[in-house]
Amino acid sequence: MKKILTLFLCSSLSFSFAVQANEQPTVNKIKPKNIIMIVSDGMGPAYTTAYRYYNDDPNTPEIEETVFDRHLVGMSSTYPAPVSGYVTDSAAGATALATGVKSYNGAISVDVNKKPLKTVLQQAKKNGKKTGVVVTSQVNHATPASYISHNESRRNYNAIADSYIDNGINIDLLLGGGTNYFVREDRNLIDEFKAKGFDYIESYDQLNTIRSDKSVIGLFAPIGLPWALDDSNKYRLSAMTKAATAHLENNNGYFMLIEASQVDWGGHSNDIASAMAEMDDLAETLIYLEQYVKEHPDTLVVLTADHSTGGLTLGVDGEYKWEPSVFKGMKQSSHSIAQAIAEKDITAEQLAQMLTFALTDEQFSQLQVIKENKADDIKTYQLTRQLYTKINQFISEKSYTGWTTGGHTGIDVPVFAFGKGHSIFSKKIDNTDIAKKIFKLL
Amino acid sequence: MKKILTLFLCSSLSFSFAVQANEQPTVNKIKPKNIIMIVSDGMGPAYTTAYRYYNDDPNTPEIEETVFDRHLVGMSSTYPAPVSGYVTDSAAGATALATGVKSYNGAISVDVNKKPLKTVLQQAKKNGKKTGVVVTSQVNHATPASYISHNESRRNYNAIADSYIDNGINIDLLLGGGTNYFVREDRNLIDEFKAKGFDYIESYDQLNTIRSDKSVIGLFAPIGLPWALDDSNKYRLSAMTKAATAHLENNNGYFMLIEASQVDWGGHSNDIASAMAEMDDLAETLIYLEQYVKEHPDTLVVLTADHSTGGLTLGVDGEYKWEPSVFKGMKQSSHSIAQAIAEKDITAEQLAQMLTFALTDEQFSQLQVIKENKADDIKTYQLTRQLYTKINQFISEKSYTGWTTGGHTGIDVPVFAFGKGHSIFSKKIDNTDIAKKIFKLL
Repeated sequence: MKKILTLFLCSSLSFSFAVQANEQPTVNKIKPKNIIMIVSDGMGPAYTTAYRYYNDDPNTPEIEETVFDRHLVGMSSTYPAPVSGYVTDSAAGATALATGVKSYNGAISVDVNKKPLKTVLQQAKKNGKKTGVVVTSQVNHATPASYISHNESRRNYNAIADSYIDNGINIDLLLGGGTNYFVREDRNLIDEFKAKGFDYIESYDQLNTIRSDKSVIGLFAPIGLPWALDDSNKYRLSAMTKAATAHLENNNGYFMLIEASQVDWGGHSNDIASAMAEMDDLAETLIYLEQYVKEHPDTLVVLTADHSTGGLTLGVDGEYKWEPSVFKGMKQSSHSIAQAIAEKDITAEQLAQMLTFALTDEQFSQLQVIKENKADDIKTYQLTRQLYTKINQFISEKSYTGWTTGGHTGIDVPVFAFGKGHSIFSKKIDNTDIAKKIFKLL
Repeated sequence: MKKILTLFLCSSLSFSFAVQANEQPTVNKIKPKNIIMIVSDGMGPAYTTAYRYYNDDPNTPEIEETVFDRHLVGMSSTYPAPVSGYVTDSAAGATALATGVKSYNGAISVDVNKKPLKTVLQQAKKNGKKTGVVVTSQVNHATPASYISHNESRRNYNAIADSYIDNGINIDLLLGGGTNYFVREDRNLIDEFKAKGFDYIESYDQLNTIRSDKSVIGLFAPIGLPWALDDSNKYRLSAMTKAATAHLENNNGYFMLIEASQVDWGGHSNDIASAMAEMDDLAETLIYLEQYVKEHPDTLVVLTADHSTGGLTLGVDGEYKWEPSVFKGMKQSSHSIAQAIAEKDITAEQLAQMLTFALTDEQFSQLQVIKENKADDIKTYQLTRQLYTKINQFISEKSYTGWTTGGHTGIDVPVFAFGKGHSIFSKKIDNTDIAKKIFKLL
């Protein structure tokens, strides 16, 4: 009888535990020490799909699985507050991801009444965690700004940069671009950060000199970093991330925001070659973090996009084809190729070398016409922009890449997660749920 | 000591059971009696997102959750065999979903060497289950054909229809369109099915006359069914599904394929109003199946798409907007509106009534120009097609709907599942995995 009772008790216990294991685990059991939130700006589902085929090795019969494939857990809706309709901008998107509240397009972690909203990074800091931000845009761009600060408009770049110091410093590490906003005629924020005890670095080489007992700010470009394809280190997001994880480790844990900022910029310019190179840097970062989480299992990594950009499609105009081999070998961005054409005489052969494919005579002459018909007072960057748009069209046509817009679209975005507590981000969630769940984990 | 040992044993047992509950459950425990596979042809992630906003009640502050939102479990890649590149057609897509093998575009459940492949429907029949097929296309279209039969080309419509009887009947219920292929000058397949003991029905009214002890074929249109917007029952997929579940129930269980065939056709025509109305019929079907699974918990429902069609985007040309209210009130399809214009004189006011919005004078005159400049020998259906294309452009412009193609794109598609065993379809899978998993569950 005693034996039966024991078995019955065991069985009841097992059952209740099993039920619990099937349900959403209680938050306390899955609280990670370190939380790494990654926003890949503009990376709708067409981008992660495209990256699989871009990454495919044509010498093997199978399509290689990507790091994204390994960690998909669901999808997220991205719509902003009703006042802004169904299609979000990066500011409202980042505000939702950082605070759990939907706001108007343009808002930097303020609500529809322009009242400041608490962010997960601020909460982490308050809880005694270290905090870090690693981006490839300027560090005061919409996404990082929405985690660190508050402003009624993303366009107030100087005010946002100022607020990083004026509202009380809540970051221990800040890496990206933006010297134009931090070293100005009216104010030198770098000097002010140094006076507050920060180390300052200004080249990727210095990443391995970061001291873990000092806060650090690193700005590597006047505005955003160069395109991955043009940068001295095309894996600069992963290089910064490696340095940041080493810097942030401490007994209380850390919260880090990483943004692959320029996937979005590729989308806005309908520049598939740069968008894929930015995805490649992000993939490298994720592969590093997979290993990092193995070694630091107390870490959660969540990756999503704020929205999709450009209306990217694989296949266009009735053709059942997408051919990333067209641009996969490019060693410089189409923007830098456009700049070269704007600044000097480039032959068709030289251009073919740069593009890794030859333009038709008709296409080459279209570029010549843009150059010859330019207005007398046109600036080089304006001419470059015109040539850049045209070259992106040629690459898209040849690779069967479709676009519908230079802006954003409303499609749901994929959500990826791994490490401690990752399963609570599964299935269909909303962008605000991501912040709400992170608040719970904090 | 004894107490401690008991607790230790309990705790060990609990632990092992919990681990098991967290892992993929062993297949035998989750084998459902009934399997309902739904293919929403062409329904990429932009369609399920779009449907959320189309379905949104503007009188409430929140965006209502859709039935799709409740059951998302992951996403699926759709690429065909290498010989066809990265973008699939519906035949290769359905072949992968039905057999677990990738083939060339155009293949109906034959491999790249044109050898027949066993389908999950055929296996279910072999296992003693009843089988049913419910579609809104003709019943010998690519998707249903790939579950029922084999052919080297989807275009061999008559041969495919013939094969449903000639290769041995493996279906107990077949509902959709297609009398043109089944009642021909050279052969009357309906008479042949009747001779084999089938009941035949030819109107939706007869759906409630189906006898569960007799096999049944129901063809309700010459080719595909009318657009949902134009049909006598705009929820005809759900009506057919209700009748089918009642018919198929038996002690051995059943396998049923349901296809929302015409989401794809809306995509091919860049006709957002019809695509969303088809989605609405599918949503109604899913809502019915949610209730059905509650009452029949031994049932699995899996829904995915074979690919995405049209390169649909929510937002276009730099506008951060998508406005489904433009077309949500339409009571007939833009195709039937085009047909009315082709056949008779329609005033701008009458047209505004049909469209639920007024065209600009310039737009109205574009339609007049198409009509006045028509070639003498043009057929009404050809003129209708031209007007249809133009009206779809107007609706897309006004609602900020973007398209890149009249064909397919390569984006991953969402996967939805509920009921017994649904969790094994989670995360990122491939279209072939869906068939492989269903084979295991059989």
